Amino acid sequence: MSTHWDAELGDLDSIVERALTEDLAAGDVTARSTVPAGTRARARLVAKAVLVVCGLPVAERVFARLDPAVAFTAAVADGTRVVRGATIATIEGDARALLGAERTALNLVQRMSGIATATARFVQAAGGRCRVTDTRKTMPGLRALDRYAVRTGGGHNHRNDLGAGVLIKENHIRAAGGITAAVRAAKQHAPHTMRIECEVTNLAEVDEALAAGADAILLDNMDDDAVRDAVARIGKRAIVEVSGNVDLARTGALSEMGVDLVSVGALTHSVVAADISLLFETTP
Amino acid sequence: MSTHWDAELGDLDSIVERALTEDLAAGDVTARSTVPAGTRARARLVAKAVLVVCGLPVAERVFARLDPAVAFTAAVADGTRVVRGATIATIEGDARALLGAERTALNLVQRMSGIATATARFVQAAGGRCRVTDTRKTMPGLRALDRYAVRTGGGHNHRNDLGAGVLIKENHIRAAGGITAAVRAAKQHAPHTMRIECEVTNLAEVDEALAAGADAILLDNMDDDAVRDAVARIGKRAIVEVSGNVDLARTGALSEMGVDLVSVGALTHSVVAADISLLFETTP
Amino acid sequence: MSTHWDAELGDLDSIVERALTEDLAAGDVTARSTVPAGTRARARLVAKAVLVVCGLPVAERVFARLDPAVAFTAAVADGTRVVRGATIATIEGDARALLGAERTALNLVQRMSGIATATARFVQAAGGRCRVTDTRKTMPGLRALDRYAVRTGGGHNHRNDLGAGVLIKENHIRAAGGITAAVRAAKQHAPHTMRIECEVTNLAEVDEALAAGADAILLDNMDDDAVRDAVARIGKRAIVEVSGNVDLARTGALSEMGVDLVSVGALTHSVVAADISLLFETTP
Amino acid sequence: MSTHWDAELGDLDSIVERALTEDLAAGDVTARSTVPAGTRARARLVAKAVLVVCGLPVAERVFARLDPAVAFTAAVADGTRVVRGATIATIEGDARALLGAERTALNLVQRMSGIATATARFVQAAGGRCRVTDTRKTMPGLRALDRYAVRTGGGHNHRNDLGAGVLIKENHIRAAGGITAAVRAAKQHAPHTMRIECEVTNLAEVDEALAAGADAILLDNMDDDAVRDAVARIGKRAIVEVSGNVDLARTGALSEMGVDLVSVGALTHSVVAADISLLFETTP
Amino acid sequence: MSTHWDAELGDLDSIVERALTEDLAAGDVTARSTVPAGTRARARLVAKAVLVVCGLPVAERVFARLDPAVAFTAAVADGTRVVRGATIATIEGDARALLGAERTALNLVQRMSGIATATARFVQAAGGRCRVTDTRKTMPGLRALDRYAVRTGGGHNHRNDLGAGVLIKENHIRAAGGITAAVRAAKQHAPHTMRIECEVTNLAEVDEALAAGADAILLDNMDDDAVRDAVARIGKRAIVEVSGNVDLARTGALSEMGVDLVSVGALTHSVVAADISLLFETTP
Amino acid sequence: MSTHWDAELGDLDSIVERALTEDLAAGDVTARSTVPAGTRARARLVAKAVLVVCGLPVAERVFARLDPAVAFTAAVADGTRVVRGATIATIEGDARALLGAERTALNLVQRMSGIATATARFVQAAGGRCRVTDTRKTMPGLRALDRYAVRTGGGHNHRNDLGAGVLIKENHIRAAGGITAAVRAAKQHAPHTMRIECEVTNLAEVDEALAAGADAILLDNMDDDAVRDAVARIGKRAIVEVSGNVDLARTGALSEMGVDLVSVGALTHSVVAADISLLFETTP
Repeated sequence: MSTHWDAELGDLDSIVERALTEDLAAGDVTARSTVPAGTRARARLVAKAVLVVCGLPVAERVFARLDPAVAFTAAVADGTRVVRGATIATIEGDARALLGAERTALNLVQRMSGIATATARFVQAAGGRCRVTDTRKTMPGLRALDRYAVRTGGGHNHRNDLGAGVLIKENHIRAAGGITAAVRAAKQHAPHTMRIECEVTNLAEVDEALAAGADAILLDNMDDDAVRDAVARIGKRAIVEVSGNVDLARTGALSEMGVDLVSVGALTHSVVAADISLLFETTP
Repeated sequence: MSTHWDAELGDLDSIVERALTEDLAAGDVTARSTVPAGTRARARLVAKAVLVVCGLPVAERVFARLDPAVAFTAAVADGTRVVRGATIATIEGDARALLGAERTALNLVQRMSGIATATARFVQAAGGRCRVTDTRKTMPGLRALDRYAVRTGGGHNHRNDLGAGVLIKENHIRAAGGITAAVRAAKQHAPHTMRIECEVTNLAEVDEALAAGADAILLDNMDDDAVRDAVARIGKRAIVEVSGNVDLARTGALSEMGVDLVSVGALTHSVVAADISLLFETTP
Repeated sequence: MSTHWDAELGDLDSIVERALTEDLAAGDVTARSTVPAGTRARARLVAKAVLVVCGLPVAERVFARLDPAVAFTAAVADGTRVVRGATIATIEGDARALLGAERTALNLVQRMSGIATATARFVQAAGGRCRVTDTRKTMPGLRALDRYAVRTGGGHNHRNDLGAGVLIKENHIRAAGGITAAVRAAKQHAPHTMRIECEVTNLAEVDEALAAGADAILLDNMDDDAVRDAVARIGKRAIVEVSGNVDLARTGALSEMGVDLVSVGALTHSVVAADISLLFETTP
Repeated sequence: MSTHWDAELGDLDSIVERALTEDLAAGDVTARSTVPAGTRARARLVAKAVLVVCGLPVAERVFARLDPAVAFTAAVADGTRVVRGATIATIEGDARALLGAERTALNLVQRMSGIATATARFVQAAGGRCRVTDTRKTMPGLRALDRYAVRTGGGHNHRNDLGAGVLIKENHIRAAGGITAAVRAAKQHAPHTMRIECEVTNLAEVDEALAAGADAILLDNMDDDAVRDAVARIGKRAIVEVSGNVDLARTGALSEMGVDLVSVGALTHSVVAADISLLFETTP
Repeated sequence: MSTHWDAELGDLDSIVERALTEDLAAGDVTARSTVPAGTRARARLVAKAVLVVCGLPVAERVFARLDPAVAFTAAVADGTRVVRGATIATIEGDARALLGAERTALNLVQRMSGIATATARFVQAAGGRCRVTDTRKTMPGLRALDRYAVRTGGGHNHRNDLGAGVLIKENHIRAAGGITAAVRAAKQHAPHTMRIECEVTNLAEVDEALAAGADAILLDNMDDDAVRDAVARIGKRAIVEVSGNVDLARTGALSEMGVDLVSVGALTHSVVAADISLLFETTP
Repeated sequence: MSTHWDAELGDLDSIVERALTEDLAAGDVTARSTVPAGTRARARLVAKAVLVVCGLPVAERVFARLDPAVAFTAAVADGTRVVRGATIATIEGDARALLGAERTALNLVQRMSGIATATARFVQAAGGRCRVTDTRKTMPGLRALDRYAVRTGGGHNHRNDLGAGVLIKENHIRAAGGITAAVRAAKQHAPHTMRIECEVTNLAEVDEALAAGADAILLDNMDDDAVRDAVARIGKRAIVEVSGNVDLARTGALSEMGVDLVSVGALTHSVVAADISLLFETTP
């Protein structure tokens, strides 16, 4: 589990580096004063509540950056739902290193597990009838981790960034001179690897987007009746996404109306950190 | 409002750079396809709920990075409490730049305003009787902004990082061979500019920490009765901090027991993004 | 023309910074020794052959980094076809700065104009009947500029990076257990904003990819007869891309067979630098 | 072969990092969707034409960055001339890592081998009678690799950067007030470790440069007769470099006129990528 | 001894990287030309004078960056006082790597040992009666190493940076409207983990600072009589620091007056490099 | 004076950035607490001793980074010798910015002026009869500034880095198999823009180096008699450098023996910071 760059997490090293710089650039004056050099320690990451674990490779990297010889043993894999009290991982190594890494590792794992746990609830509500996706409302500097956490919770990712997908919104429409013009311009210019998605707010716009050749239609802040009508009108000719005011309760309802995906900004913009502690067991 | 580095926000440029890289390194395919080069736009940052504004200089930097000639006009200063519907700032500049910067600016301002708004509630609950502080449970890569947001909300910062303050916890105590040994070691080694704070979990430890010369005592996860006893026993001989399970309701109670500060991890580890939108007014 | 980050060029600053560091980190010993501080100079970028101009905003950035007050005046816009001898831009500023920036600016503009010029030839050969696209065979560190140059020459971009599009190749197929399994897995996991493209080498594979639901099919190294058959068999049910051994001559032929796009690695992996010089006119 | 920094390649890590960031910052959505985690693969780098191999340590670094445990086995050393079909290296490791690294590794190795192969042809034409050198017309961000590739092909490097050598050109001469003044100024100010080289365009200038004490003279765009005269007139009192319009054919002629070196910009500014493929052999 | 980040040295990697970039970005032309690839070498770091050793983990990192398999064996620990001629460490590895790393390693170790050696003299003069501390007059880019060297020599660190401690100086006082106002403002705003230190220049200011509640008082450029008076007047109610014109001789005198610490800028702003050489023993 | 990169100072921005990060990443808690936002200040850089001024563009950059609108007015140019009490520059701007930048600016200017001042003394001792040069014993991370300071003091630079010049030392000689072999190898491989310099320790080695064709000879740690003999024997056939135990007194003597240059490591490895203060004049 020592890969630096991968298909899942991107450039983890630079995230870890930045985080440690914030906390340790001036050293750890408490550990330096009170913990003798060379002291060994053993600790456990423990769930203090029911949660979906996410971020263990990240935590491992943090500890390994301070003690390359650390023994980090994951007790479960990312994506596992654990009960309160469960041991998630054990870490053994230099005591100063473990103390120095503790907060940074927890800050990351608690966020990631928080996202995975919340996503899993939405996915359950969707009951396999539609996708649950994130948005670009991720934490600046941590997008790769946020996206990974959503996948770990069973969700799907939306376009990663402004260069990875076409989503025509109200302002693009206005600047282009209407939905038809905007969709056509996008079809003409965007890479053929991308679908053309267009945001609409009413049924007339649904019709226009469809006619212009949109491959996906985002129903923005439309109520349930309007969503139902739109789904019927689209009739599988385009992918249907719903966003805006999508909470856990409405997710189930939407999934039964035949929408293809709901996108939920709160998954990443308002994360409740999962309750995870690092318990030191021995400091001989 | 063009200062890059300051006493408040640290190295804002690198935060903005990283955030834009995540979203724009491959360009903005939608804007490029649908918005003619040279189009101008005017937009307003608008509060969609009551909130304490925070992060306007950060938002300005994001827009200015994409359009150096942007006109960003703050309608209120950071720290202002605004009502739903209030205009927070107006931005006028290149349409592609505004669209490209929108999400990044909002991601930052919504988090910062969310922190400031929550902090203000805690500060109000404390009624001026004790400080409300953050912790090191900040978002990796964004610590300077998180700390600034807490101050903006009327809160205080705890030690910034592991090199900026001494806080002796259970594991340091165990490694040092007891509270007395740990406190003495810290007094001997730490810079004279730092107070020595020691975490305790019961009254016996309070006594030992005091006797050893601790300048501040952190009562960790102690119930209200124990806190009351501890405050009495300490009798102003040390600063008293309470942490663990401190919510809004308990903050008022604690503040009346004579504690000097409560530290609240949730201020930064579980932020609810403030509801702020960017409304485009004209795209001529 | 002072925007740093934009929808077209990405993070130009860091490219310029790296390039200047390579050439100037130890200063310019010749200019320091022979050109008096404060000397002014005026120079022209001149085409030494027929070419499509590309990279003027990049050149401007290079000169401006060494002399923020430089006057850089583009005589034509990027994308303009100019004749031998044409002035492309004039630059006036500090002589040492112009001499220090000259090589770096030319290295970038000559590559970019070389790409745009070659692309324009392929686009002309395609006669508007199909797209000409680049590949991921770009120069490491310069992908954003390479992609921009292809667009400037009238071409289209393929997926920007491994996270921005799905292209299932032989090895993915083998690992997934066949074309059907691979296409289905991609449809299940990839963001809904992406089309699923599958590479095939014969007609049987074309059929299988279509049946599995591929949105685009890449005919890899197939001869003209096979391409013709494949186009017929696909019958507009999927986008048809041809790659492998596509030179200028064959591009015209392929475009007439009804393929949707040809992708040409040589556009960026084997660039002939456009012949452009910086002529100093006065060094008073 | 795990050295990061060396006397040959400089800071290879940052080049690799940048290249991978361009392609993988958002992960590899295809591999993630279709290749099961943990799949192993074995691949061979194979020459598809006669070429001089260059860049194997670079390729190894790329693969190792994604899979630190990869087994990369070079079949030949850099600088070896191989025939079409030859195996250059074998790579065995995690399948997703190999797929993720493939394009980046090839982009670098194909450029470097392309440079080495072209250089070897020029060196052969020079027949050991004169040096063949590169210029500062290298690819921004890749200068160290370009220089290494030229050496690998048997060529020599010119001054690495503007701080590493003195080359007085027309504009320096004009600013200094003539060849004599410029050469003298350089002799007075430049480090004693550098020779003073002066560019000239006719025989009168050759005489002036020699008289002023130039250690090396660059005959710029002079025809064969003029070169012959200049060589005779210089009579070993200075090093003679020829540049401008030097192709393979003329290199042999120039080498027989007694010039000491020819410098060839095209070696690095117009590289034809060597034809090298990565063939996956097994994906069990 | 392969930890990268620690409680003592902060982000050593980036310091080493920067230093090597300065010296080796363009390779080592001498070693490349004269030392055959693969040559092995063995060398010793030797003290050429009596000194306190400091920086061996830093030196090891430099050598290991160029040859990851280097065998670096410290003969003594940092902080050891050695005599002239003593071997400090032995290094065995690739000859080109050792030659390339030599100067960078020495530049760092000689500075660090120079600081440790000078600090040890001041500490000895203080005779255990008061602390000797550094200041913020450290070398830009090397603060963590400078601070570590001071500790290695037996000294203490002052506040690490402007965010890690409060020190109210003349200009803060003027801006705040007097000592009383400044001290109170600091007590109100600064983290509770910090003591409030105030600089004074005469006894009246001592009184005012004390009355305002300063925790520490810095006697700036006051003569011995004034210091004696101030110490008496403060009477242990605040920590007493003396700075300005503190040399070795005066340190002893001050320590006997009862001051708590003397801070000495020269420890880091005017370092005499310790005399240490790298002697190559064998180059088989 | 707003150029970022130039022929004199290289990439000044990154040096300033690093330095400010060390001191201000966590903000300036004292200024924030005691100096009202928006306060203006005016200050003067003042010489507290006779010194050669160096580093004003660097200081300006530091202040401008914190307050882009700062008015920095140099009273003298770099290289000017000033008397005690002289005003070197005036700075007017935001008070918090000036206080935040003060220490960083002084740390750099005091080092640079210290180097320039010491160099000027050596240059005076050399009386124009020989060059005084620095060595590679510069401060890691600050080489460009150290080199500039030496030039400012009237000295010359030695080779900038290991890639910018050839200097064959004892270990290269041993590895190559003797002086003759080493010099010949260097002549064969090094760029033609570099002279070949060889270090020798006795007269026999002088003869061998000369015979092998060395362009420059470094007499290492040879006494005055040996230096005199060597100069005579070399008889202008090579440049003569003396290094090792070269202090101010011996510099005059050496310069009269006909050596071409003396190189002095102490100029940069053991710098005495010039005594310069920042005096605040008004803080209205």
